[in-house]
Amino acid sequence: MSSAKIQTDSPVPLYAQLKEILRAEILNGGYLPHSRLPSEHELGSIFSVSRITIRQALGDLQKEGLIFKIHGKGTFVSQPKAFQNITSLQGFAEAMSQQGHQILNRVTGFKHMAAPDYVAQRLNIPIGAPLTEIRRIRMLDRVPVSMEITYLPEAVGKRLSNADLASRDIFLILENDCGIPLGKADLSIDATLADAHLATALNVDAGAAILRIERLTHDAQDNPIDFEYLYFRADVFQYRLQLDRHHAPRMDPET
Amino acid sequence: MSSAKIQTDSPVPLYAQLKEILRAEILNGGYLPHSRLPSEHELGSIFSVSRITIRQALGDLQKEGLIFKIHGKGTFVSQPKAFQNITSLQGFAEAMSQQGHQILNRVTGFKHMAAPDYVAQRLNIPIGAPLTEIRRIRMLDRVPVSMEITYLPEAVGKRLSNADLASRDIFLILENDCGIPLGKADLSIDATLADAHLATALNVDAGAAILRIERLTHDAQDNPIDFEYLYFRADVFQYRLQLDRHHAPRMDPET
Repeated sequence: MSSAKIQTDSPVPLYAQLKEILRAEILNGGYLPHSRLPSEHELGSIFSVSRITIRQALGDLQKEGLIFKIHGKGTFVSQPKAFQNITSLQGFAEAMSQQGHQILNRVTGFKHMAAPDYVAQRLNIPIGAPLTEIRRIRMLDRVPVSMEITYLPEAVGKRLSNADLASRDIFLILENDCGIPLGKADLSIDATLADAHLATALNVDAGAAILRIERLTHDAQDNPIDFEYLYFRADVFQYRLQLDRHHAPRMDPET
Repeated sequence: MSSAKIQTDSPVPLYAQLKEILRAEILNGGYLPHSRLPSEHELGSIFSVSRITIRQALGDLQKEGLIFKIHGKGTFVSQPKAFQNITSLQGFAEAMSQQGHQILNRVTGFKHMAAPDYVAQRLNIPIGAPLTEIRRIRMLDRVPVSMEITYLPEAVGKRLSNADLASRDIFLILENDCGIPLGKADLSIDATLADAHLATALNVDAGAAILRIERLTHDAQDNPIDFEYLYFRADVFQYRLQLDRHHAPRMDPET
C-alpha cells in the first residue's frame, strides 16, 4: 500500500479520495491481478474511514470492473480482458487502436509455397497453386495476444514483401497499398487448446484455452483473397458483438 | 464395405457411382469419423476402376467435407462439426432445427435465488433481488453440445416453471407464452477449459476446449431480461458469421 493518505479537510468526498488511491494502486501494479485487497475492516484501520465510505469506494471500483468480490473470500483485483467488437470487418490493429491500445506485430514467417488442399479450396485456386504464407504474433500493449497465419495468392502476397507488417494490418495494406477494396468475410469461431508451438508463441502453458477463428475475406467483387487462421489467448482477449432479434416469418408455428 | 457394385453398363459415370457408394457408406456409419478409407490402390481392386476414377470420386467427397487427406497417411472420414449462424439472435433449437438437427434439453436445475453481484449488475436489478436460475444441457442429435445457465428476474422465471424446457428455447417461451418480445443481445465470446463439472455434463475430458458465451438479452424496450452463460463443446460445434467491411471515415489517414 502506498503512503497516500486521505485528507479530511479536502473538499473531495472521502470515498472519492479512497477510490482514487485504490485505483492508482491497482493501475500502477501495487495490487496485481487476482490479488486480494485488504478487507473492509483492514481498509478502515489503514485509512481511518467508516465502513460506509469504504463500501462506496469499492462499489464504484467494482462497477468499473477493476475489482470483483467472491462471497466469503473477499475483494480481488480483476484481470482486464481486451475485447474486439465485431460489428464490421476490421483488422486487429484498426479495431484495438480505437480503444487506445498499442499494437505491434512480430513477423515470424513470410514464405511462398504450394497451396495445400484446404486452403486452395477456400481461396478457390488449384491445389498446389503458388501461395504466400505470412505468420505473425500480435502484441497488445506488449503482451502477445494472437498468432495469425495468413494465406494470400502469391501474386498478391509478393506485393506485401516490403510492407510494414510489423505495425500495419494486412487489410489496410491490401486496400491502401495494393488497391484491393475488401468486401465480406466469413468467420468460423470455435475453441482449441494451445499446442507446444502456440504456447511458446503466445507465452502461455501448453493446453491453455485458445479462441480460434477461421476467416475468409473477399474483395469487393466477392472473390476470396485472404484466408487466415487466428489464434487468440482466451485469458486476455474476447470478441464482443450485438445481435438483433429478427422475426422472420416461419413456415410452421413453434409449438 | 457394402456389397454395392459399380455398373459398367450404367449411363451414370463410374466416378459418380463410386462417389455415391462411398458417401452412403460414410453416412450410414459403415466408415466412422476419423477412420481411414481404403487406399486408392485398394479401392481400385475392390471396385475394378482406374485410379483416375477413384481420384475424381475422392476429390468430390473431399470438397463436400465428408473426407480429408493427411499427406503420407491416407484418406480419413471427417467428424462433421455442427455450426450455428449468428447473423440474428436465435435460440439454439430455433437455429439448429432449421438445419435438420434434433434438439433435446436435459433440465438439470431450476431454482429461485438471490441475485449475485455480477448477474444483478448485468440485469440491472439490486444485488440480492429474487432471481430464477435454469440449468440445461442441450443435446444435438443426442450428443451433449452445450451447458446453459440462464438467469431471469424471478417474476419472469416463475412463469417458466411449467414450461416445456426440455424441448423449447427459452427465447420462444418468453416471446410466445409470456408475451415478452425480445430486442437486442450483447454477446461476449471467448474460450475456457472444461472443469470437472462441465466435463461430466458434456461428456468430455476435464481440460477440453470450451467455447464460452456470455449473453445478455434485452426485451424490445431495451430492458435487460435474460442473462446467460453458454458453454459449447468446441470439438463438435462452432459459431459462424459473416461480416461486412465498412469504410467509416477516419480522423487520421492510416500511415
